Amino acid sequence: MSKGLVVLAYSGGLDTSCILLWLKEQGYDVIAFLANIGQDEDFDAAQKKAEKLGAKKVFIEDLRSEFVQEFIWPAVQANAVYEDRYLLGTSIARPCIARRQVQIARQERAQYVSHGATGKGNDQVRFELTCYALYPQIIAPWRIPEFYSRFRGRKDLMEYAENHAPSDLYQMTKNPEDSPSEPDVLEIDFAKGVPVRVTHVKEGTSKDTPLELFCYLNEIGGKHGVGRIDIVENRFIGMKSRGIYETPGGTILLHAHLDIETFTMDREVRKIKQSLGIKFSELIYNGFWYSPECEFVRHCIDKSQENVEGRVQLSVFKGQVYILGRESPKSLYNEELVSMDVQGDYDPCDASGFIKINAVRLREHNRLQGAAQKTL
Amino acid sequence: MSKGLVVLAYSGGLDTSCILLWLKEQGYDVIAFLANIGQDEDFDAAQKKAEKLGAKKVFIEDLRSEFVQEFIWPAVQANAVYEDRYLLGTSIARPCIARRQVQIARQERAQYVSHGATGKGNDQVRFELTCYALYPQIIAPWRIPEFYSRFRGRKDLMEYAENHAPSDLYQMTKNPEDSPSEPDVLEIDFAKGVPVRVTHVKEGTSKDTPLELFCYLNEIGGKHGVGRIDIVENRFIGMKSRGIYETPGGTILLHAHLDIETFTMDREVRKIKQSLGIKFSELIYNGFWYSPECEFVRHCIDKSQENVEGRVQLSVFKGQVYILGRESPKSLYNEELVSMDVQGDYDPCDASGFIKINAVRLREHNRLQGAAQKTL
Amino acid sequence: MSKGLVVLAYSGGLDTSCILLWLKEQGYDVIAFLANIGQDEDFDAAQKKAEKLGAKKVFIEDLRSEFVQEFIWPAVQANAVYEDRYLLGTSIARPCIARRQVQIARQERAQYVSHGATGKGNDQVRFELTCYALYPQIIAPWRIPEFYSRFRGRKDLMEYAENHAPSDLYQMTKNPEDSPSEPDVLEIDFAKGVPVRVTHVKEGTSKDTPLELFCYLNEIGGKHGVGRIDIVENRFIGMKSRGIYETPGGTILLHAHLDIETFTMDREVRKIKQSLGIKFSELIYNGFWYSPECEFVRHCIDKSQENVEGRVQLSVFKGQVYILGRESPKSLYNEELVSMDVQGDYDPCDASGFIKINAVRLREHNRLQGAAQKTL
Amino acid sequence: MSKGLVVLAYSGGLDTSCILLWLKEQGYDVIAFLANIGQDEDFDAAQKKAEKLGAKKVFIEDLRSEFVQEFIWPAVQANAVYEDRYLLGTSIARPCIARRQVQIARQERAQYVSHGATGKGNDQVRFELTCYALYPQIIAPWRIPEFYSRFRGRKDLMEYAENHAPSDLYQMTKNPEDSPSEPDVLEIDFAKGVPVRVTHVKEGTSKDTPLELFCYLNEIGGKHGVGRIDIVENRFIGMKSRGIYETPGGTILLHAHLDIETFTMDREVRKIKQSLGIKFSELIYNGFWYSPECEFVRHCIDKSQENVEGRVQLSVFKGQVYILGRESPKSLYNEELVSMDVQGDYDPCDASGFIKINAVRLREHNRLQGAAQKTL
Repeated sequence: MSKGLVVLAYSGGLDTSCILLWLKEQGYDVIAFLANIGQDEDFDAAQKKAEKLGAKKVFIEDLRSEFVQEFIWPAVQANAVYEDRYLLGTSIARPCIARRQVQIARQERAQYVSHGATGKGNDQVRFELTCYALYPQIIAPWRIPEFYSRFRGRKDLMEYAENHAPSDLYQMTKNPEDSPSEPDVLEIDFAKGVPVRVTHVKEGTSKDTPLELFCYLNEIGGKHGVGRIDIVENRFIGMKSRGIYETPGGTILLHAHLDIETFTMDREVRKIKQSLGIKFSELIYNGFWYSPECEFVRHCIDKSQENVEGRVQLSVFKGQVYILGRESPKSLYNEELVSMDVQGDYDPCDASGFIKINAVRLREHNRLQGAAQKTL
Repeated sequence: MSKGLVVLAYSGGLDTSCILLWLKEQGYDVIAFLANIGQDEDFDAAQKKAEKLGAKKVFIEDLRSEFVQEFIWPAVQANAVYEDRYLLGTSIARPCIARRQVQIARQERAQYVSHGATGKGNDQVRFELTCYALYPQIIAPWRIPEFYSRFRGRKDLMEYAENHAPSDLYQMTKNPEDSPSEPDVLEIDFAKGVPVRVTHVKEGTSKDTPLELFCYLNEIGGKHGVGRIDIVENRFIGMKSRGIYETPGGTILLHAHLDIETFTMDREVRKIKQSLGIKFSELIYNGFWYSPECEFVRHCIDKSQENVEGRVQLSVFKGQVYILGRESPKSLYNEELVSMDVQGDYDPCDASGFIKINAVRLREHNRLQGAAQKTL
Repeated sequence: MSKGLVVLAYSGGLDTSCILLWLKEQGYDVIAFLANIGQDEDFDAAQKKAEKLGAKKVFIEDLRSEFVQEFIWPAVQANAVYEDRYLLGTSIARPCIARRQVQIARQERAQYVSHGATGKGNDQVRFELTCYALYPQIIAPWRIPEFYSRFRGRKDLMEYAENHAPSDLYQMTKNPEDSPSEPDVLEIDFAKGVPVRVTHVKEGTSKDTPLELFCYLNEIGGKHGVGRIDIVENRFIGMKSRGIYETPGGTILLHAHLDIETFTMDREVRKIKQSLGIKFSELIYNGFWYSPECEFVRHCIDKSQENVEGRVQLSVFKGQVYILGRESPKSLYNEELVSMDVQGDYDPCDASGFIKINAVRLREHNRLQGAAQKTL
Repeated sequence: MSKGLVVLAYSGGLDTSCILLWLKEQGYDVIAFLANIGQDEDFDAAQKKAEKLGAKKVFIEDLRSEFVQEFIWPAVQANAVYEDRYLLGTSIARPCIARRQVQIARQERAQYVSHGATGKGNDQVRFELTCYALYPQIIAPWRIPEFYSRFRGRKDLMEYAENHAPSDLYQMTKNPEDSPSEPDVLEIDFAKGVPVRVTHVKEGTSKDTPLELFCYLNEIGGKHGVGRIDIVENRFIGMKSRGIYETPGGTILLHAHLDIETFTMDREVRKIKQSLGIKFSELIYNGFWYSPECEFVRHCIDKSQENVEGRVQLSVFKGQVYILGRESPKSLYNEELVSMDVQGDYDPCDASGFIKINAVRLREHNRLQGAAQKTL
């Protein structure tokens, strides 16, 4: 008799294939669920493999559109970057995948959900925090001693294979040394802080659905080797780990969004929003997409984007993104006001009062310090 | 009879030359002070020019070493970046220059200090907030109606010249399109969060005094077109303005320091320090280097750097800086702990408890929301 | 011929009466505007006085309801407190008054607005920042040398009178030493973070319109001497000043709101909201109620209050507010979960994993410190 | 044969007595450690009880002085308050107790440390995070199923007893309704942000060692019913719980320190320090006293206190603390500067420029909003 039905997040790879087999061996019925979030994968082959390994059903689901719109776009609005460098690509995918997995589990009346994330990583947390309220019965084999003792050997082997195949490290991006010696110039239109159209200036071609647009930016960024990083990062569970990431489209969008945002957003709103964005990035990284605080922060960030609208022109070249210019109907940039030749509605004498009043506090401080000599 | 003695921050250019003349015309005696902070300038020619224009004395002072050590190094420790993009090059120079100017004024018993910063910019604030406690008698001609009405014409002319000379825009950095097609690989050693040696791996050459080291990074960065940006920024006085900057050495140091810092600093210390760094950047930008809060923040950031020590290897190529690796005797990266194959002093089962306890709050939230269906 | 029409914020007191006269003397026509925001004032007498002094028109407007709902309620939601102590009573009133003054100026086609705030205080800033976008023609006599030189004498006199009349210092609150020796017990019902009903438990009476409710809390708080403070505060213009304030109703609401908020709001949302509340308080104090950042922060805080609903029971006695209990349909407090006797849906063993994983980072830190002895 | 030696944090109460017995029953040798941090306890009786129950050794240690100086004083400097209300009394005691317990364990060559904190509370975390790096062998019986299943009955009983003895709830503070009808007026002298002397103005008596001073404030505060709160708080493990606390001395010090700090600290330093203080409070509450981030924050806060020096006069009465005045040689309060009658070194006209420049941004925002009408 079956111990129950498990929906397994299946990748098609060695790890989750082992888990599928092991779950069956332990007496569970297994549904394999493979999400397409844009990874390079032979989904048909994966389906056949899962069936051959004994999956009762196989769900292969194209989540790309919802991934881009509901998960990547809010990250673009937030300028989401973890620890100043990591653009959170895979971190954002986890709640998207887990959400669908829970829906399948519910629909198929499964008792359990399972995944192949290891016991030292972030993904176990991201996966399970999404699931917990709903499916407390999570099976995490890499945290079950019987499992990880048995399969350590294969894991070693697999790791070895992975570690000795450096050509696979970057799959989306070319090495900048081998990338074209001509830049591509793009124009990206934003509305409410998300991209709504990208145009290749020379070729005159455009993309304007979220998925196409994002794939196109991945393609152009990848062609020019944009968005590769080799970092050490701080995992939620308290370890430092090394990560090698590539986020070509995301990197282009980060540059473009930062630019149009500063162009259209008030300085002080920007400061507050910046700190919310840092918080948001941390929440995503740690797996708290579905939490009251993340919902709150997303709402606030979304509110801040009401006027983030306009067009950014940029050049993509040899691993870099260069902003060439920007324009917007909502711009707070006032050429006349800022001009050195035109006074505009601005009296330079006011600056004297502004500076003097700002100095009141500093002068009091110095008065107390007792001596100019000491300070300078 | 003289109206008094003025120490003028003199640049050798058209603007401050006009000011020098005008001050004399108004009846002041003028001392010209020209600081060498590494700009590309013919100092001898400037000296002669100032003398010819009637300066009573000319001070040309090499502040490069103190600029690097006392101003740039703290900015490196802080990962100082204003509004996510601007590396604050000129902003940091102002307090360094103004400090010396005040010293000269005091030594020469001058009654006034003066500068050529315009009435709509940030530099007037940066300059004057540094001076205020000590020399309230600041003469800021660009905020004096008699001056700016009279010289508007020349200003126009000069602006015109500047604006129509795009080849001069970038002076330190090559266009990445014209930069070498071979990267340079460097190793930078840090101690207490500041660089203490840079080595060109292939050539085997090293620099280890602050000034030489920084100049060398400017040279290498410049050669590869690193650190050019074209941004819109928010001035302290409330306007948005466009800025085009190049910070080749600073950009290399930012990448390298971020890397060694994350490698050696505790995650939670890093978070607190990151917010202090953002505050510090804003203070520098707004001209508050010499303020109690900036002194406080500098002290705290410096404290955070005690263990930021080690070597970063990086490649500079076509406008980009790529981190290749890092090592440190103070690293908090523990290869055994993080390894997927070795359990180390870590029990994967603990992660289950960690995740479940983190989920307590989320489950309560969901319980109240009343329905899983609603959330997902 | 008239120099133009001025709408003057008139208080009925000596200061603004002088200003009214002086403006007329200078050749302006003056409309006196006196806002009723709940202060203790003989409005009829003030009207007559203004007319007698030569005001062309006198507007006396009851702004109490809008003041409570549109200004005080958001401050209650925010737990607004400046520098940990000041409840911002008068600060919140300024934008409410200035808003109406600008409406009157527009409706009456006046060219100017004017006020009696002094040149060293916060109120000038609060008033004028509200007005600026709309009526750049502000006349601020206390910053006009002709005015303040002439009237300094009278000012001195008046100040003297004020300073030597300590019995007037507190007008709303009794001295706690003289207050009743029996507490009053109230129940306050909240919805979306604002009070919707207050009930006197013993007397069984209730108030449920915002204005009545707030006045009642002022009355009860005043009777028991609640909300008096004597502080030193930091003005926006950079000075420290001494302030003596009384905020009886506001103090009761702060205690009650803090309590119901913590009861119904997720911990992490609370943290983020707390920092927004601190920002909000600073914005109000500095006069930025009508600014993009304050609008943004108000929106975010309002969003955070969606579930802040329930009833708080409290006792008011001898200058203090004591929370006696709270109840809410939206409470996140789960008696079973927290009980020491019932396990509930909680496995104490999970706490072991939680603590151990939280210690991973600390142990790495200590490992590096090299020696337990050193740390402890 | 013994399973090993355990140092148990012993309270003298029912709970830890059960644990002592149970540990012996399980085959351990037990050292009982009872810390005196100022609680009301018959230490001799506790010693005898522990011996009778079979403790191999009993350590009773007076930690009061180090508790006040090394733990309470930093909290005073920080104005440490968790979630705006809780003054962290017991939270601060945990690391002090655990530190000594680890020292004893090391000195006695014990293999284990143990405590009686329950599995749902904060104290288990506070205790164990302090110990972890050093004594990973922690025995936490309330998280061991064999223990908590067996003793649940007694626990129930004990809880019952506790819950039905309301007269014990507050042990240090009188009910304000029964407190004296005459205030006590105190003067507290601070140096570097910590109290160095307290004087009873009328009686002319003083205390100036940390322990005596703190005990005296507890006594005076207790006599007047100061510092009682009934709150709901958010535990680190994700639950909300109800807490009833009394912190008489701490409450007096919080009021006094806030006052002298604002009097002597620059406004902007204060803002930064305030956010560090909130962080510090959270770290203490969650048990991270011995963590790199808490050490860092303590260092920064301590630095901020360099000039926090002077005397505060206050009155304690009927549950309240009223600040009456303050004086300091390091005051940044400048009576002449702030005076309405004396111009001092301040030109009111500067305020016009200050306000206008602050309004530049707001006017741009409004210009874009297109219409004054819309905003106001």
